[in-house]
Amino acid sequence: MKIALYPGTFDPITNGHIDILERATHLFDKVIVTVAVNSSKTPMFSTKERVDLIQTIIQQKRYKNVSVEHFEGLLVSFAKKKNATAIIRGLRAISDFEYEFQMALINRKQAGEIATVFLMPHEKYTYLNSSIVRELALLNGNIKDFVHPVVLRALKKKISH
Amino acid sequence: MKIALYPGTFDPITNGHIDILERATHLFDKVIVTVAVNSSKTPMFSTKERVDLIQTIIQQKRYKNVSVEHFEGLLVSFAKKKNATAIIRGLRAISDFEYEFQMALINRKQAGEIATVFLMPHEKYTYLNSSIVRELALLNGNIKDFVHPVVLRALKKKISH
Amino acid sequence: MKIALYPGTFDPITNGHIDILERATHLFDKVIVTVAVNSSKTPMFSTKERVDLIQTIIQQKRYKNVSVEHFEGLLVSFAKKKNATAIIRGLRAISDFEYEFQMALINRKQAGEIATVFLMPHEKYTYLNSSIVRELALLNGNIKDFVHPVVLRALKKKISH
Amino acid sequence: MKIALYPGTFDPITNGHIDILERATHLFDKVIVTVAVNSSKTPMFSTKERVDLIQTIIQQKRYKNVSVEHFEGLLVSFAKKKNATAIIRGLRAISDFEYEFQMALINRKQAGEIATVFLMPHEKYTYLNSSIVRELALLNGNIKDFVHPVVLRALKKKISH
Amino acid sequence: MKIALYPGTFDPITNGHIDILERATHLFDKVIVTVAVNSSKTPMFSTKERVDLIQTIIQQKRYKNVSVEHFEGLLVSFAKKKNATAIIRGLRAISDFEYEFQMALINRKQAGEIATVFLMPHEKYTYLNSSIVRELALLNGNIKDFVHPVVLRALKKKISH
Amino acid sequence: MKIALYPGTFDPITNGHIDILERATHLFDKVIVTVAVNSSKTPMFSTKERVDLIQTIIQQKRYKNVSVEHFEGLLVSFAKKKNATAIIRGLRAISDFEYEFQMALINRKQAGEIATVFLMPHEKYTYLNSSIVRELALLNGNIKDFVHPVVLRALKKKISH
Repeated sequence: MKIALYPGTFDPITNGHIDILERATHLFDKVIVTVAVNSSKTPMFSTKERVDLIQTIIQQKRYKNVSVEHFEGLLVSFAKKKNATAIIRGLRAISDFEYEFQMALINRKQAGEIATVFLMPHEKYTYLNSSIVRELALLNGNIKDFVHPVVLRALKKKISH
Repeated sequence: MKIALYPGTFDPITNGHIDILERATHLFDKVIVTVAVNSSKTPMFSTKERVDLIQTIIQQKRYKNVSVEHFEGLLVSFAKKKNATAIIRGLRAISDFEYEFQMALINRKQAGEIATVFLMPHEKYTYLNSSIVRELALLNGNIKDFVHPVVLRALKKKISH
Repeated sequence: MKIALYPGTFDPITNGHIDILERATHLFDKVIVTVAVNSSKTPMFSTKERVDLIQTIIQQKRYKNVSVEHFEGLLVSFAKKKNATAIIRGLRAISDFEYEFQMALINRKQAGEIATVFLMPHEKYTYLNSSIVRELALLNGNIKDFVHPVVLRALKKKISH
Repeated sequence: MKIALYPGTFDPITNGHIDILERATHLFDKVIVTVAVNSSKTPMFSTKERVDLIQTIIQQKRYKNVSVEHFEGLLVSFAKKKNATAIIRGLRAISDFEYEFQMALINRKQAGEIATVFLMPHEKYTYLNSSIVRELALLNGNIKDFVHPVVLRALKKKISH
Repeated sequence: MKIALYPGTFDPITNGHIDILERATHLFDKVIVTVAVNSSKTPMFSTKERVDLIQTIIQQKRYKNVSVEHFEGLLVSFAKKKNATAIIRGLRAISDFEYEFQMALINRKQAGEIATVFLMPHEKYTYLNSSIVRELALLNGNIKDFVHPVVLRALKKKISH
Repeated sequence: MKIALYPGTFDPITNGHIDILERATHLFDKVIVTVAVNSSKTPMFSTKERVDLIQTIIQQKRYKNVSVEHFEGLLVSFAKKKNATAIIRGLRAISDFEYEFQMALINRKQAGEIATVFLMPHEKYTYLNSSIVRELALLNGNIKDFVHPVVLRALKKKISH
């Protein structure tokens, strides 16, 4: 059974992430969405909130082979623990490219048996990321095409506080 | 009458910005230099100082169809309020490219009728930006080819404090 | 009256070109689609065929301020003859960027008063160009989302010969 | 059973290609190396020679789940015929990026159910490609680190003619 | 005698830096590794620690024409004081490119007689930098291929505190 | 004595090439401009004409430590024959970057003791190359800022034939 991790901060998960996730479900037997607990940055959503949003979307989308977990520390150590042989990354634009390659190379040096697999999201998500979603939400911009309805509700609630 | 916004932080305005502004005055009936009030970063110059510097330069250059304003919130909302149909952006280098495309795309999603128009500055300004000007000023470097004399004076005064 | 050229080889015109053209019609009083007669490459469609396809599309789209012409020689000389003050170019991807900047810079050296104005096509056309359309047509691929119906018919006719 | 195509011109196959192929064998149940019959360019090695070289390497490397075929026409049509759900591509450098994305996007438009999967070769193959191998071979350069011994022999024989 | 500066933050020096340094020793009569005292960021290692690590490596490697110093203020002023006519920079990836060009251009404007000379590190260091080394060290990752043994020891000591 | 090659096609030499050459003369004891005899492309100027143009410019500029030669075959073999330890390359733009890195890497694999040294031309030559010069000359464009007067005359003579 081929297991893949799909790691990220997911603060919050966008439709671009969901697009990549869905493509991954067709390529691997099991996909574990892996929410990074990043201690250096203060996320808009707590680790628990980010995991819960993804859990809700997995259920609503009725994905059979997807689960969500959070992790701290070295990604490849978590991958080994989960018997994953692949790490999924969306590759949207040149600006992603070198950072992603650096991470892939570093991860390979740490654990050569785990492959980083790059997938391309739908072109309508090329320039979408979580930070632009947060910024637009704060400025009361229109983000309904960019995030799932449960994320939209969570963003509105978070901002109204 | 075709109205265009030329938005930016302008902290401070450089000769590269002035070069783009001048090109824009020939393409549009009216250009509004639009100073962003960015609440998350602490600028070297206050919003009022940045607007005043630009105002002084507009007068000295005797531009007939240029004004300067500041704005908060969503750029496209401000554009609509001003009946602008275009947003001007200078495109200097690859590193600008993807950020600018992301912003242009996001703005288009918010207001499809407003076009982002990219202009190329003179090649001597290719690698010039406000942050390098601030850094050089702080290190007592030579910046007289990079900014207008009124900005040079303002920088010297600011740093001597 | 602000006149802009929209130059290209247009072998054949794609929906990406039409998208840029339509945006340009809102920014300028008059847009002249300018078909380059490139003597060094052998196009799939003759100059006359390329001009005729664009003419048909202009009529079907009922653009009021668009015309089509062909030109040979230096683009800026043609621009001056037509009293154009702007040259429109679509900017889709990084690979376009440096070539376009080179051309814009060279044109500016030849005629400083003519500005190159870059517009961004819809993201669904980011990776579309005439050469991929020709290649797909030859391989019997599906190109109906990429070109106007009159171009589709012309391609099928051309290939069946 | 997950089947993937690994398409290319392979004129000739390099150690960078073999590196990607080996990674793919761990991710998919079956990998079909797919040699493109490109009618517009004249390859150094004939389709048969390129297929034979790859066949020899597959046997020497004792890959159990790899085969080699050639194809003409649309890649996605061949993928469908072979029940492949993935197309493997090596992604080495920025210069690959946009071309690969264009092809992936075009292929997705033709057959949305087939995913393009990008893998990263070992960094020592970052700047290696078939054309540099051919050029070095012709100039009598040292290429033994770049190609498999059977390819080295074939290149020497080809050039001595 | 041709003197070159090799400036950087070196927080800490990596094997990629050492690779560039070694190449520079063959091109210039004297190379001064120049540790930047950056007042705006808090480095992991103090200026003294960074200079000492480099000093130890210079001795162990028995470089005859290398010394290390720290500097504050404008790099070109320091270069003039040291009679250096060249500034050495490693160029690894596209993401370096524009920043490096900006700095080279700015430095040239300040002192036209000092050339920036770009060297390419070994491809195995393409994606290596000090920040990834610090991050891996903090996560207890394997970094022994990335730094000199004295740096490895210093990192372990620093982190255990 | 440090000897450097400055290789290229120089069809014809531009002011951008001369700018790089002049910088190199300050860094090395001797610089050999090395004109590539490229058998696969048909140049506008013959090898002899290209060498002669460069020779004339060297004399007019009174460079004391520059000579010009042509070479066929592997660049590093020629470098070894000339006792050169460095290969000079101008790096103008991202589009140069990957090609130049590939060549530098390949050359290093062939002869590890020869370093490729990248220099940055004046920003006014960023987008200048020989092919744009030839194209502009053929279209009767203005190229007097781009090439030395002797090259201008040679181009006019060549084209009038």
